[in-house]
Amino acid sequence: MPEIRQNIATKEWVVISTERAKRPEDFKSIKEKKVVPEHSQSCPFCPGNEHMTPYESYVINDEFGKWKCRVIPNKYPAVVSEGTVEYKMEGIKRKVTGVGCAEVIIESPKHNMIIPLMPENDLAQVIFVYKQRYISAEKDKRIKMIIIFKNYGEQAGASIEHPHSQLIAIPVVPFHIRYRIEEAMRYFDETGECVFCKMLKEELLCQERIVVETGHFVSFVPYAALSPCHMWILPRRHMESFSEINDAEITDLAKNLKLTLSKLYLGLDNPDYNFVIRSVPVNEKGKEYYHWYITIMPRLIKTAGFEIGTGMSINTSIPENDAKFLREIKVR
Amino acid sequence: MPEIRQNIATKEWVVISTERAKRPEDFKSIKEKKVVPEHSQSCPFCPGNEHMTPYESYVINDEFGKWKCRVIPNKYPAVVSEGTVEYKMEGIKRKVTGVGCAEVIIESPKHNMIIPLMPENDLAQVIFVYKQRYISAEKDKRIKMIIIFKNYGEQAGASIEHPHSQLIAIPVVPFHIRYRIEEAMRYFDETGECVFCKMLKEELLCQERIVVETGHFVSFVPYAALSPCHMWILPRRHMESFSEINDAEITDLAKNLKLTLSKLYLGLDNPDYNFVIRSVPVNEKGKEYYHWYITIMPRLIKTAGFEIGTGMSINTSIPENDAKFLREIKVR
Repeated sequence: MPEIRQNIATKEWVVISTERAKRPEDFKSIKEKKVVPEHSQSCPFCPGNEHMTPYESYVINDEFGKWKCRVIPNKYPAVVSEGTVEYKMEGIKRKVTGVGCAEVIIESPKHNMIIPLMPENDLAQVIFVYKQRYISAEKDKRIKMIIIFKNYGEQAGASIEHPHSQLIAIPVVPFHIRYRIEEAMRYFDETGECVFCKMLKEELLCQERIVVETGHFVSFVPYAALSPCHMWILPRRHMESFSEINDAEITDLAKNLKLTLSKLYLGLDNPDYNFVIRSVPVNEKGKEYYHWYITIMPRLIKTAGFEIGTGMSINTSIPENDAKFLREIKVR
Repeated sequence: MPEIRQNIATKEWVVISTERAKRPEDFKSIKEKKVVPEHSQSCPFCPGNEHMTPYESYVINDEFGKWKCRVIPNKYPAVVSEGTVEYKMEGIKRKVTGVGCAEVIIESPKHNMIIPLMPENDLAQVIFVYKQRYISAEKDKRIKMIIIFKNYGEQAGASIEHPHSQLIAIPVVPFHIRYRIEEAMRYFDETGECVFCKMLKEELLCQERIVVETGHFVSFVPYAALSPCHMWILPRRHMESFSEINDAEITDLAKNLKLTLSKLYLGLDNPDYNFVIRSVPVNEKGKEYYHWYITIMPRLIKTAGFEIGTGMSINTSIPENDAKFLREIKVR
């Protein structure tokens, strides 16, 4: 009998489709394997081609003055940095000017560097850069919401192969986020507890869906995982905003994220994925009821009419099986 | 300057990305063209292979006793027909049994029949069958929500080539739907008007985003279209449930849907798409504030981390340009 599960925090429903269930191994990536070079002459993100990108807004250099991580304004930005926030409502036409910030974080000078192969220190540096850019965007009074994300591979919407992530800061709080916050608030009002802290506590107690535990972070397959090997990484400490992450936590997140993504890489043959840092809207810090986290979505299945029509998902993999599968993968 | 537009009915935000804007023609499907045969020996939905599918739950025959449209239970159902609705809440684990109805509507005996080539009468018959199956599912006391949809092409999640659509009836109202209904209710409470009727009135007045007008239906690119050539087909008459469609409207919807999809077919070289009939939850008929409609989503772009993180979309095409482009395509 299929189960329709609900995520207690986000209220998202998902059909855990036992009738169509597959083993996690069945979702192994079937994309063509190719050798990616360490440097590409035509890649705008490779060293030597800095003139092909806008001037950097942030950079970390090594001891020889060569950049290790570089942040640039997006050349084709979703939102633009110049201008004021103006709302217009005219009958059915409602809009706000698309101002904000769109940056690209080039994670490494090496064209073929991927997180499972990255030294932990370098990954910690990338996360440190995420934090710096988040804090910088937060200072802009026009900004209401900041999203940091990575699109890895074509199925995940990446158009450039060179390892990079993005920050987009927008002048509105989308209702999708607002509803999550409202739900978390309601749970807190009713129970006096952060729903994410509660979830983490129960997941740790039951252990069934845990993937990687490190000192400050826990990755797991949520009870109502939306798709095969969908994972969350939650900080153990209650923090509503990503900007509050401290140095020890950055180091530990690098360790956890690398391990978690390595398991995905090894277990499913380097699948495409997105990850997103979900943080509270910028003017709403100090909330007791919200908790930032990272969601990792391997792009293994296609969404179709049912998902569009209901906003629900169909997961043809059992979360507990996925977690066990990933947990048992040995990473050197 | 990019615009962040909001759909007045659904409250969905979309970034209309002028900096990345493309012409509608740029989204032409690049999939390999292949000749699809009228009959396929191995296709479970082709005449002669009826034994490969579960026994039909509904059928329309021609004057010679051969089937023209056939409804079968889904062999790999998301939800199953046997069982009772049982909610379970145990700490963070919330679930309901996956009971309901999952049917496949085989639209034609011809393996290569597509809606743009289908005689209008045959398409009207398919829509008539949708209505019959909707009404049948509605009678099941366990059902709260019925979705009828079509996945066309691999990008849209179709796994079988033979023309078919699906009905899935579920025992919960997903929050995605609940929020839409709440928003429509709020608009009605404030203005005394159905927000969809209001939208239709304004779209007809302004004409800028209209694609096809027929006697009872209007197709248009919404002001806050979520992706290139995203369209809605709205009935002119206020009806909250698809089950209320009358015979004259069925005939007219066939005409409108065929014309609208033909423009997509001709303009974008037979792109993959989903369409979904969005109707009110089954126990909530007689609402003055909700209005059923069809949403058509050509699958021309990939969603990525930004969409996952915000629930917003980035549309790299201008809705007004898309509508003009589609409007000007001549259909024989």
